[in-house]
Amino acid sequence: MMKQKLSHEIDLCLLKKKCKDCKRVLIKIPDGLRHLSQKIFDSLEKRGREVIISADTCYGACDFHGGMGGVDKVIYIGEAEMPYLKKLYHLPVEFIEVYAPYDVKEVVKKAIPLLEGKKIGITTITPYVPQIKKCVEILKREGFSVIIGKRGRRTAHDGQILGCDLTAGMCIADKVNSFFYIGDGFFHPLGLSLATGKEIIAANPSQGNVIKEEIEQMKNEILKKRYAIVAKAMDGKRVGILVGEKLGQQRLELARRMKKLAKEKGFDAYLFSADVISPEKIDYIDVDFFISTACPRIAIDDADLYKKPLLTPIEAEIVFGERGWKNYEFDQIL
Amino acid sequence: MMKQKLSHEIDLCLLKKKCKDCKRVLIKIPDGLRHLSQKIFDSLEKRGREVIISADTCYGACDFHGGMGGVDKVIYIGEAEMPYLKKLYHLPVEFIEVYAPYDVKEVVKKAIPLLEGKKIGITTITPYVPQIKKCVEILKREGFSVIIGKRGRRTAHDGQILGCDLTAGMCIADKVNSFFYIGDGFFHPLGLSLATGKEIIAANPSQGNVIKEEIEQMKNEILKKRYAIVAKAMDGKRVGILVGEKLGQQRLELARRMKKLAKEKGFDAYLFSADVISPEKIDYIDVDFFISTACPRIAIDDADLYKKPLLTPIEAEIVFGERGWKNYEFDQIL
Repeated sequence: MMKQKLSHEIDLCLLKKKCKDCKRVLIKIPDGLRHLSQKIFDSLEKRGREVIISADTCYGACDFHGGMGGVDKVIYIGEAEMPYLKKLYHLPVEFIEVYAPYDVKEVVKKAIPLLEGKKIGITTITPYVPQIKKCVEILKREGFSVIIGKRGRRTAHDGQILGCDLTAGMCIADKVNSFFYIGDGFFHPLGLSLATGKEIIAANPSQGNVIKEEIEQMKNEILKKRYAIVAKAMDGKRVGILVGEKLGQQRLELARRMKKLAKEKGFDAYLFSADVISPEKIDYIDVDFFISTACPRIAIDDADLYKKPLLTPIEAEIVFGERGWKNYEFDQIL
Repeated sequence: MMKQKLSHEIDLCLLKKKCKDCKRVLIKIPDGLRHLSQKIFDSLEKRGREVIISADTCYGACDFHGGMGGVDKVIYIGEAEMPYLKKLYHLPVEFIEVYAPYDVKEVVKKAIPLLEGKKIGITTITPYVPQIKKCVEILKREGFSVIIGKRGRRTAHDGQILGCDLTAGMCIADKVNSFFYIGDGFFHPLGLSLATGKEIIAANPSQGNVIKEEIEQMKNEILKKRYAIVAKAMDGKRVGILVGEKLGQQRLELARRMKKLAKEKGFDAYLFSADVISPEKIDYIDVDFFISTACPRIAIDDADLYKKPLLTPIEAEIVFGERGWKNYEFDQIL
């Protein structure tokens, strides 16, 4: 059954409170929450605040660079803060999480017959963090023992995972029989499956559906595709190593390590940086393949758009003979 | 006659000197000079420097944001520095100008019969700055009196103009009969023509051609197009005002003034910021037209790509009834 269309809402009281002492605020907001823009303008400007909404695409809580001068505060709408970034912002930054309007109850019940074993690890993403408790209660009533993993360096809540930080799942993998994931998309459950080797049962409350076998199928498809890309890179001689300029994606040390490794293995290796990596920025660069140390999703999600193989650092280790294919994982920024 | 294909070269000794005390440098380089990348890598890495070349599009000497941590210096290849930005960089920044390999002599001689009057103002762009002297000598030998305008806040050299800073032309407009411009493109001579009302004779040494009437024709075409865009905006009720996040494009005060003016005239007005402004970032925004206070060229060069009218602040003044069409100018950041 398709859920009725509900809209994510923002806590305007919290927003006003966070802007209490500000004259001018810059708002960062992901594409999926842009419909909140007018409410944000209205609510704050009525109280004499000056609001600038960033029109730049916003890829997550990692997505900061130097940006605008002349504002008192940056308010990030949507995701949970990355705790370790707190010390690195150039300006005061605050986060307002936005939660999904879909009740998890129905999908949790639907998931129960699919869960494997009695010890279940629950993972989720920010929009469903407030509903973890409800989920735990339902599962406990059904006789499951439930474990929530501790948050990592990049996550704000226990049980919360990111495409680039699966800590809350990985740290309890040896204590659970299977994982129950609440959220949308394939990327998080796929990553969790690769990182833990456990069965993942994924419930999407906005669609009202639960998947399990589909994750395995999708994983096999992606692995085949990645294998082809890695194999193609193996014929290369020159490699471009990409460093992300976004505050939470800068992995210069990893990039240097990759460069050193590439040179030791007889490749020519060059460092390139970018704020947002995209095909038109790198396709023309005179190398045979790329290693991206920026957002771990770039290489996976947009693989078909790039003319040359774009590898994760883990895939590069396979090319350089430092890792076997059977130890394949998704890249994370841990 | 087409010139033979010559390549812009970089002064590698200067580059090495500028990087003498650096461990790690970030290189910013415009698309047209990307062919220099390999030389830059080779020259600096041989001496133990670590080089990262920014893959981001680089739109000019204004194009800085917070960017990368962990580097000792940013080296900008190509353009001349904007003097007033010196105090605003987050990191040490140095500029290496790159000059065109085409001798101006031939086009200067070709231009002589087209020049109007005996008092000539010379303007140019960075790649031809070193050849201004030669140009002056030729014109003086032919009996012209030559005037070079002083540099502005955003230009490093007397006689140098930018798309966004025509100071070196405007400050001598009442002392000259016509302008002689050396460089490529239509944008600079068009702007100069609009800003000064003088005849412009433009020589492009890389093509070996000189134009004069074409500038008037192009100007009329652009004005017609701009008039249509301005007229369309006049039917609007809601306006989005765009602030550029690049260090040399941030005009928040101008944006605020535009917002105030719009509101006084009965429009709803909202501020948006972006690093690079592009159609996919703003087309969907729920307003009727935009005013861009970022790079003055965005509205003009890419007009056809945007779904909604994108105006310069000067055009917005026409919409708001604060300026007559006959006082139309290109936007500048002075």
